[in-house]
Amino acid sequence: MQKTISILGSTGSIGEQTLSVIDQTVGYSVGYLTAQTNIQKLEQQALTYNPIGVVITSEPHYIEFKKNTSYKGNIFFGVDGLCEAACSDDTDILMSALVGFSGVIPTLEAIKKGKTVALANKETLISAGEIIMNAVKTHSAKLIAVDSEHNALLQCLVGEDISSINTITLTASGGPFFSLPIEEFSTITLEKALKHPKWKMGSKITIDSSTLMNKGFEVIEAKWLFDLQPNQIKVLVHPQSIVHSLVEFSDGSMKAQLGMPDMRIPISYALSYPKRFSYNFPRLALEEIQTLQFYPPDFQKFPCLQVAFDCLEKGGNSTAILNAANEVAVAWFLEQKIGYTDIIRSIEFALNKMPFVAHPSLADIIEIDTQTRSLLEQHLSTKL
Amino acid sequence: MQKTISILGSTGSIGEQTLSVIDQTVGYSVGYLTAQTNIQKLEQQALTYNPIGVVITSEPHYIEFKKNTSYKGNIFFGVDGLCEAACSDDTDILMSALVGFSGVIPTLEAIKKGKTVALANKETLISAGEIIMNAVKTHSAKLIAVDSEHNALLQCLVGEDISSINTITLTASGGPFFSLPIEEFSTITLEKALKHPKWKMGSKITIDSSTLMNKGFEVIEAKWLFDLQPNQIKVLVHPQSIVHSLVEFSDGSMKAQLGMPDMRIPISYALSYPKRFSYNFPRLALEEIQTLQFYPPDFQKFPCLQVAFDCLEKGGNSTAILNAANEVAVAWFLEQKIGYTDIIRSIEFALNKMPFVAHPSLADIIEIDTQTRSLLEQHLSTKL
Repeated sequence: MQKTISILGSTGSIGEQTLSVIDQTVGYSVGYLTAQTNIQKLEQQALTYNPIGVVITSEPHYIEFKKNTSYKGNIFFGVDGLCEAACSDDTDILMSALVGFSGVIPTLEAIKKGKTVALANKETLISAGEIIMNAVKTHSAKLIAVDSEHNALLQCLVGEDISSINTITLTASGGPFFSLPIEEFSTITLEKALKHPKWKMGSKITIDSSTLMNKGFEVIEAKWLFDLQPNQIKVLVHPQSIVHSLVEFSDGSMKAQLGMPDMRIPISYALSYPKRFSYNFPRLALEEIQTLQFYPPDFQKFPCLQVAFDCLEKGGNSTAILNAANEVAVAWFLEQKIGYTDIIRSIEFALNKMPFVAHPSLADIIEIDTQTRSLLEQHLSTKL
Repeated sequence: MQKTISILGSTGSIGEQTLSVIDQTVGYSVGYLTAQTNIQKLEQQALTYNPIGVVITSEPHYIEFKKNTSYKGNIFFGVDGLCEAACSDDTDILMSALVGFSGVIPTLEAIKKGKTVALANKETLISAGEIIMNAVKTHSAKLIAVDSEHNALLQCLVGEDISSINTITLTASGGPFFSLPIEEFSTITLEKALKHPKWKMGSKITIDSSTLMNKGFEVIEAKWLFDLQPNQIKVLVHPQSIVHSLVEFSDGSMKAQLGMPDMRIPISYALSYPKRFSYNFPRLALEEIQTLQFYPPDFQKFPCLQVAFDCLEKGGNSTAILNAANEVAVAWFLEQKIGYTDIIRSIEFALNKMPFVAHPSLADIIEIDTQTRSLLEQHLSTKL
């Protein structure tokens, strides 16, 4: 059966790799493609895939694109455009691959339409996990994790009873600073932080990987995706990035998903779930890799991971504050306006200042997100 | 729902561990228990579990047991007794855990009754794989592998489409002689060969593990259990015996089952499949083990593995000859009447001497088994 896939964030790393998976798949066509500012790449994609429509969320880029494009399909603007793409009757599967909080609203709208959503936007579950999962149940939507770790868990859990999960273990590459002495963390430069040892990803998530905040976010996501308690979720540093995550069952047995660190594998599984397609992606040869290692994470060197566990334990709006504060702090670090260890300091500042709300509504979360950003922007500006 | 489990070979290692799993499981009762000669242990088991009946296959031991036992249930004798136990309407699940060729007939009889058979007897599939799998299909029986490796594959395949298997990888501990130089193999003593580094098993299978013939047998079993071609089956030496086997799927993703080297885990999964029970078996802590290693096997040091692949490729009655010859050779080695490297020499002798039959019937296989044994016994006796 022909399936139409719309991609929110098609010019990003996950978006591009999704298109490369679709290239190799019979029976999949492209519905909508969206970009924020990269209209050159969007132009190429639009002419190659001839989608039903494209969306641009930056107004000047939207205007420029509309003026100059050779693409003849529909051109939409902004969050409304994203929601149009996400909820269109033409969209069978939505690849939600926007970076940051901007992904939450269109993803939720697609869920409310009962869509199958391949979720690559982390912030959706980190900021609004409870609301999202309730909407998934109410509207019988399907939420399929694209992240290699949660996708690995999904693969380990196919055919299993979710109530037989004892614990899950998310693996972390450890990032570029796994072996760096704690005293040297304050000297970490942007250039060093952007060199991830294993995965090719966007710059924001690469920084989050280096602080292990990315792993902390995945802990929070795992809680929502698989209905777990915080003490059922473990993290192990696994420098080879071959075992993408593990499940321990009630009988003491564990299952792991393994593969080359290639996002096309989890992307293709998200699109084919619970079946699998045939691809000639590079194969894993364990006899060549020979050694797989596993270490407990160092919570002192990577306080972002500890803070994520703390926020998950605390619940309410904590993880939404965490996400907003981290997004601002990382943006400032990427602009080289603050140092590496200022990231965790900024997050802790925001968590201390923002009021706790036990059961936030979506409106609360949007407000918390805005307030946290403005609080932290102001705080960081004052310090400059 | 109450389920009754009968155990062929209850006084052996798998049999005892099956009883220990049943001890921890609500809703499982014992149907029949069987022994060859260990009537003391059978007496204890009979008085503890109060089965419907017991079977003893050695005639003098049967007579002695009948005379002296305090057990009040039914006491049966021989292969007919085993078939009675296997096929009884009271038996919901048959644990087929006899050692050697003697397990084939009662296992096949249970399959013909459409039973659920937890298969721990390797020889059943090695000698008569085609006949057994045809019977499983014809009689809608269920054949569930107990062996940690095939059980691992079963766990990896639950919920998956079997046609999406690309390859499977059986892991091997490498046995006690993994690091021994090839020149020293002729000096291996029985005592050294019986010291398996990881698994507590019966003596015959411990020797088979040390020669990697056990792994060769598992390759053959895997072919039948999962409908594979020989070139879809790989072996990797994994000294930690933590990853029990792996499946590579058509999309390049791999799944592995991991756990402590404790046979109670695969036994319990075989009894609960496709569900899982809750047990407090020892948990695997990867952060304590830290390192998992994988190496290609050395076919020169372990020619039994190569011979098994060759027999699988050749098909017909080759694997039945292989099994019979190995059983005789290992028995002679266990009695310290031949040396360690005489095992492979004996096997090769039998394979060269016995005639090839492309599509053996069960009668053919029984005859091949008898003939191979007598040929090899005679050959070895002459050499003494």
